[in-house]
Amino acid sequence: MEFLSDLLTTMVTQLQKPTLSFLIGGMVLAALGSQFKVPDAIYKFIVMVLLLKVGLEAGISVREADLAQLLVPAIAAMVTGIAIVLIGAVTLARARGVSPVDGIATSGLFGAVSASTLAAGMAVMQDGGLPYEGFIGALYPFMDIAALVTAIVLGRLATARTATSGQGGAATMTLSFGGAGGGGHPGVVKEIITDTLRSSAVSALLLGLILGIVARPDAVVESFYDPLFSGLLSLLMLILGMEAWSRLSELRKVAHAYIAYAVAAPIVHGLIGFGLGLVAHYLTGFSAGGVVLLAVMAASSSDISGPPTIRGALPEANPSAYIGSSTGIGTPVAILSIPLFVALADAVIGF
Amino acid sequence: MEFLSDLLTTMVTQLQKPTLSFLIGGMVLAALGSQFKVPDAIYKFIVMVLLLKVGLEAGISVREADLAQLLVPAIAAMVTGIAIVLIGAVTLARARGVSPVDGIATSGLFGAVSASTLAAGMAVMQDGGLPYEGFIGALYPFMDIAALVTAIVLGRLATARTATSGQGGAATMTLSFGGAGGGGHPGVVKEIITDTLRSSAVSALLLGLILGIVARPDAVVESFYDPLFSGLLSLLMLILGMEAWSRLSELRKVAHAYIAYAVAAPIVHGLIGFGLGLVAHYLTGFSAGGVVLLAVMAASSSDISGPPTIRGALPEANPSAYIGSSTGIGTPVAILSIPLFVALADAVIGF
Amino acid sequence: MEFLSDLLTTMVTQLQKPTLSFLIGGMVLAALGSQFKVPDAIYKFIVMVLLLKVGLEAGISVREADLAQLLVPAIAAMVTGIAIVLIGAVTLARARGVSPVDGIATSGLFGAVSASTLAAGMAVMQDGGLPYEGFIGALYPFMDIAALVTAIVLGRLATARTATSGQGGAATMTLSFGGAGGGGHPGVVKEIITDTLRSSAVSALLLGLILGIVARPDAVVESFYDPLFSGLLSLLMLILGMEAWSRLSELRKVAHAYIAYAVAAPIVHGLIGFGLGLVAHYLTGFSAGGVVLLAVMAASSSDISGPPTIRGALPEANPSAYIGSSTGIGTPVAILSIPLFVALADAVIGF
Repeated sequence: MEFLSDLLTTMVTQLQKPTLSFLIGGMVLAALGSQFKVPDAIYKFIVMVLLLKVGLEAGISVREADLAQLLVPAIAAMVTGIAIVLIGAVTLARARGVSPVDGIATSGLFGAVSASTLAAGMAVMQDGGLPYEGFIGALYPFMDIAALVTAIVLGRLATARTATSGQGGAATMTLSFGGAGGGGHPGVVKEIITDTLRSSAVSALLLGLILGIVARPDAVVESFYDPLFSGLLSLLMLILGMEAWSRLSELRKVAHAYIAYAVAAPIVHGLIGFGLGLVAHYLTGFSAGGVVLLAVMAASSSDISGPPTIRGALPEANPSAYIGSSTGIGTPVAILSIPLFVALADAVIGF
Repeated sequence: MEFLSDLLTTMVTQLQKPTLSFLIGGMVLAALGSQFKVPDAIYKFIVMVLLLKVGLEAGISVREADLAQLLVPAIAAMVTGIAIVLIGAVTLARARGVSPVDGIATSGLFGAVSASTLAAGMAVMQDGGLPYEGFIGALYPFMDIAALVTAIVLGRLATARTATSGQGGAATMTLSFGGAGGGGHPGVVKEIITDTLRSSAVSALLLGLILGIVARPDAVVESFYDPLFSGLLSLLMLILGMEAWSRLSELRKVAHAYIAYAVAAPIVHGLIGFGLGLVAHYLTGFSAGGVVLLAVMAASSSDISGPPTIRGALPEANPSAYIGSSTGIGTPVAILSIPLFVALADAVIGF
Repeated sequence: MEFLSDLLTTMVTQLQKPTLSFLIGGMVLAALGSQFKVPDAIYKFIVMVLLLKVGLEAGISVREADLAQLLVPAIAAMVTGIAIVLIGAVTLARARGVSPVDGIATSGLFGAVSASTLAAGMAVMQDGGLPYEGFIGALYPFMDIAALVTAIVLGRLATARTATSGQGGAATMTLSFGGAGGGGHPGVVKEIITDTLRSSAVSALLLGLILGIVARPDAVVESFYDPLFSGLLSLLMLILGMEAWSRLSELRKVAHAYIAYAVAAPIVHGLIGFGLGLVAHYLTGFSAGGVVLLAVMAASSSDISGPPTIRGALPEANPSAYIGSSTGIGTPVAILSIPLFVALADAVIGF
């Protein structure tokens, strides 16, 4: 009982922190029909600064880090990304009223990572004075790419299967991973990886990461990226809150299964990330803060780079379904469940 | 004589302060035909940050304040807003060449509050190290809504009266506040209040206010909103100066009465606010800084939330008249008269 | 040998500094086909803040400076601007495949000054703790206007000459500076100067300069413009790097001479600026840092105010030629050669 009441106290305190309270404030503004709007250019600027900050700090840490230390969490991140999509493929994608390709596309977004949610997680850790490995940002692409590649390959297989069964009704399942069709493996995978690396979010993050490793950007991080971080994040949370509310309406057009999935998935996925992070903790001394942030990445669903990648690679999938689920429900649920992972790490490992 | 020379010295010193000198700089740039322009997205970003800052600080103060202390200044703010519109209705709205509804719409904007002018007032106080109650920002909606509601109700009555007298020439004045027509009272008032609360400026301010009260945004205010405040304000003053110059030309199309009103109104209204603030000072110990800022709010005319609200509620009123008067003359005169109210408060109350 | 190895060491260290590494990072991003983009409004905001910062600091310094001290560097700046265009007129403008007016327009842009490159130079000096005169920013318009006026007058003469020789084949060279035609001198010069002063970049800089002299903006410079400087510059370098890469393709359409010119010119021009700065150093004690920044201004080519001025005044010139050369090659070469001028000043004068 004490464990639960501690958990609750921690969560309530966290909800008052700037990060989470601005998210809720944005949702309330949108719900009350406020005319308040943040220009798109400002939204992009904020995301750009946050991604560069996360990347630069990760790069500076990687420069000084033992690479072996990074290896186990990176594998944990990849496994988490793949696991999330596979779970989605056997649950959401088979639910009533959900077409397989829509379900797989949605779980791909939920497996991919949201920079905003990760940044929110980092801010919550900083607010609470909880330490974590500086290289955490470097784990982002591992989980992101693993999830998107898995989802797009499975999605193309599902599309090919549907097309074949529609036409002939017999050839189903004969399409293997090595097949030549739309689901052809090696070329597709390379293309998805290239697309993801070139996407605005991942390339900003990687740029920061590489500059952090090879250049000496420490001064500009200290004088600019770091001081602006929590302020810009508060504005981003406002935007995400308003955006979430306005996307909710899109979910009316799709099956109820999406709503159930979008509410439950961030918590389930976060717990998977938490579990694999815990393994890394026992294997290599991955910190409690690192475990929380791995859980936050797993809980998050991609809001910047994911949707255009999915739209390009799986044009058959319905954007109302995957964007409505992820931006409308997945992102706020993931951000609001950050305190849960903090409380859990405190209880299981201790800060 | 010494009083006047002290007043003049204080005012000249203030004109050299960043806030006022950037405003004049912007007007000079526009007058000289500079190509310099600030993108609209940046303008919106600046206003948003300033409004959130004013709201957050007010909220943090309200959290710790004695609510009784807030009550008297809030009443003073409401009375000021209503008085300004009533004065406009019996002066400008009856002037030669001014249609009643245009005059009332204009005085509504002059009664409503400009966040930029209020922020400029706060910056001038901070530059001079002059203290004021943190909750001042919370007075904004009281004056703003009181003025807009009064103006729109009077404006609708005037329109209805004109329409009736135009048609029949007899029914004039039979329309009461409780009447069913376009000027119908209860529904209209509720609608105007809702519109104003939902307007971009007021809802950003209220969001900050509520987050300041219920959440704990102190850290993000200190690390982001407060340090950026005076710098962003200097850019905003530039924009307002340029905007004022470019709006002046619109006044050529309307009666001269608007120009006389727009020059005199900020000072007269400021003195009304000052007087009512002085009453609050003697009643409840409202600070000299608070009296100055109440005068600044009264002197200001709405540049963000007011115009669309007026346009929506009084479509018959001519935007060239009310926007030209307020943005072209009212706002710069109000900002440039801030030093006057500071000097007056110093002379009458003393800092 | 030791001199060269010192030079190399200094340059490699500089390339790791935020300013230069972000420029290279931007070029790499664009080269790899990244989707990363900075909204135009943000680009304009960054440039505006940097120009105001450079102007304000120059103004604050001029306020306290001995004006005689400013005179010699100002003359050096003007002479540099004119010399660069004259050199271009007898080299690039006479090269095979280059029309005279295109060559002169291009050398005009290379003679004019880039605020971004100057800001990068200042950041490199600040990073290295190297002092320079605060009034340096005030030299910008001297070089900029001198170069643009020279280029446009020469360009109009060249156009008139071509037109005449095309029609009659005899009247060539009869057109004097006092002539009545398109190249008519006094009116043209006044018009170009007015256009340049009204251009967005120069008027922002002059506004800062004048506010720095007559107002007291020191507090807002310290709290806003200065702290944001290096961070915003890092983003600007990213943008310039990406922009440079995307402009390179335009050079495929024009003669090879442009590429040779654009690579060599920043270094040659920088050395001219360096030499004239050295004269000022021996005459009036102009600092080593000032000499470097005069060289950087000379090396830079105008990216904001120059192109529209040239386009307006010399509509016959081909924008692909001059914008491709300056933005695509000239700017990155100039920025990357900053360490060369720093190393040279250290060797010749010593910091």
